Amino acid sequence: MKDHSEMYVPTFDDMKAAHERIRPHIHRTPVLTSSYLDELAGCEMFFKCENFQKAGAFKVRGASNAVFGLSETQAARGVATHSSGNHALSLSYAAGRRGIPCHVVMPRTAPQAKKDAVRGYGGIITECEPSTSSREEVFAKVHAETGADFVHPYNDPRVIAGQGTCARELLQQMADFGGNPDFVVAPIGGGGMISGTCLTLSNLAPEVKIIAAEPEQADDAARSFRAGHIIADDAPETVADGLKVPLKDLTWHFVKGHVSDVLTATEQEIIDAMKLIWQRMKIVMEPSSAVPLATILKNPDTFAGKRVGVIVTGGNVDLAKLPWMQS
Amino acid sequence: MKDHSEMYVPTFDDMKAAHERIRPHIHRTPVLTSSYLDELAGCEMFFKCENFQKAGAFKVRGASNAVFGLSETQAARGVATHSSGNHALSLSYAAGRRGIPCHVVMPRTAPQAKKDAVRGYGGIITECEPSTSSREEVFAKVHAETGADFVHPYNDPRVIAGQGTCARELLQQMADFGGNPDFVVAPIGGGGMISGTCLTLSNLAPEVKIIAAEPEQADDAARSFRAGHIIADDAPETVADGLKVPLKDLTWHFVKGHVSDVLTATEQEIIDAMKLIWQRMKIVMEPSSAVPLATILKNPDTFAGKRVGVIVTGGNVDLAKLPWMQS
Repeated sequence: MKDHSEMYVPTFDDMKAAHERIRPHIHRTPVLTSSYLDELAGCEMFFKCENFQKAGAFKVRGASNAVFGLSETQAARGVATHSSGNHALSLSYAAGRRGIPCHVVMPRTAPQAKKDAVRGYGGIITECEPSTSSREEVFAKVHAETGADFVHPYNDPRVIAGQGTCARELLQQMADFGGNPDFVVAPIGGGGMISGTCLTLSNLAPEVKIIAAEPEQADDAARSFRAGHIIADDAPETVADGLKVPLKDLTWHFVKGHVSDVLTATEQEIIDAMKLIWQRMKIVMEPSSAVPLATILKNPDTFAGKRVGVIVTGGNVDLAKLPWMQS
Repeated sequence: MKDHSEMYVPTFDDMKAAHERIRPHIHRTPVLTSSYLDELAGCEMFFKCENFQKAGAFKVRGASNAVFGLSETQAARGVATHSSGNHALSLSYAAGRRGIPCHVVMPRTAPQAKKDAVRGYGGIITECEPSTSSREEVFAKVHAETGADFVHPYNDPRVIAGQGTCARELLQQMADFGGNPDFVVAPIGGGGMISGTCLTLSNLAPEVKIIAAEPEQADDAARSFRAGHIIADDAPETVADGLKVPLKDLTWHFVKGHVSDVLTATEQEIIDAMKLIWQRMKIVMEPSSAVPLATILKNPDTFAGKRVGVIVTGGNVDLAKLPWMQS
């Protein structure tokens, strides 16, 4: 097993190698636009729809890169992770395609639909409490018992290199829309997608500004960004349940180096943006994926007249528990 | 005003002319696939996504053809219609683009979201009771008062020619998927989409079998098909609220001549199929649009191993009232 204890920062070549490796296992997801939403926001938006991705989220990029990069010997022991949902799904999907076991530690409060889907892909779930501390404790036990390769949901160079393939496709697809965007806005939780985006854009299009979008109620990345060091919260509460986890050393490296700003939105703004996208674009996406639009609508001066790439990170929602039903 | 009292049957050339006329006002909607749903259904399905269409449904094709085909004199008096929703939206949208008035008679029980959207596009609503008889009575009054051109939701040659453009695009797009399908399945209410599909396929690909899909609780088309004459029900009840209206002479002409079969599905089968599409394809579509998948899943022997085009007719749902919430 590769030693990750000394921080290895993935390179642009790692991202390109990841893209070759995962290509048979992922979709090249479409980029959609909405003239209605553009008019509302006062800018041109290009939605990279990872909600249409295999296993329903961008996380399958990083997970597949990790799984298919393992040697035969490593692979035989399987993979293991902890995740609030989509990484678990994705790793189970990728492991299933390689035919190796996947152990998942998951909060007992995760949506039933996500647990069912993990099991549907053949993942083996051990439940923990919905806090970062409990999750890490339970995971250490599972990891020790199985000897599986730990694929962290985001603080792993293989995962970040994989997530970076999304921004690469976006730039390629933007050629059909008149060239590179001025901004790319993506949600930030642990920072895996943002880090991959930084890795790719800092090499391919360093003039593109990268904005991280975060729930106000889980604004540890925004506070970290302003403080200049990682601030981690234990178990914040937000409807954007994919964004509760804190930054780690590797993702902080990218956020610190390449992110232009971290913008936040309230719970109601996130829910309103989500409903707007469902109603107008007719696509099913997660609350986490609505945070970018919520921050764009909230900061019209920043984006006025600009071309803005928006990463729609995933579409795995429990249809029986939509947030506008609960409020 | 053209005299429609003697039945004019639209021709293949009318459909081609419609396509030219409406092109600036509609989207060429994408064709999506799902390996999961294909495995479940035991056939290959190609979903023509009119839920992504302007105004959220295929109806904008026929409505735009009618509105943009009017002479200046006719246009000045505006257009009028009765509709359970999507035709009203579409006609308001098209009239708005031409800058002429649009009068709409709509059941008072229609989803609030649809009423708001009609008004949002500038449509002028007069409410009626949720029955065919009340609708026609109230409409006659509005029509007489305004002198607007009556654009029937489906029993109008201009509308049918417009709806036929959808099947034409589907065939063109199927070239990327290895050629024509064996079947095209579309929902049937009044029969506008099915008639347009018949018009186009009987000319371009007469070997493709056309299947109409209908709610069991509003199965007047299925009973008409078997009886050999139109059977109309007044105010049937179904979750597929776009499919409550009966066949009329012009649509019956196409159904009788070119439809291979009319298949039905129960309310629960429709709701289950709808949820499956939302969950797996991550697209927002109406209960009416789920009827084709419901009938395909119910008739595995008919479709086994076949290539099946499926018309996803629209995506205008009231997100606060999803059918699995009420059941």
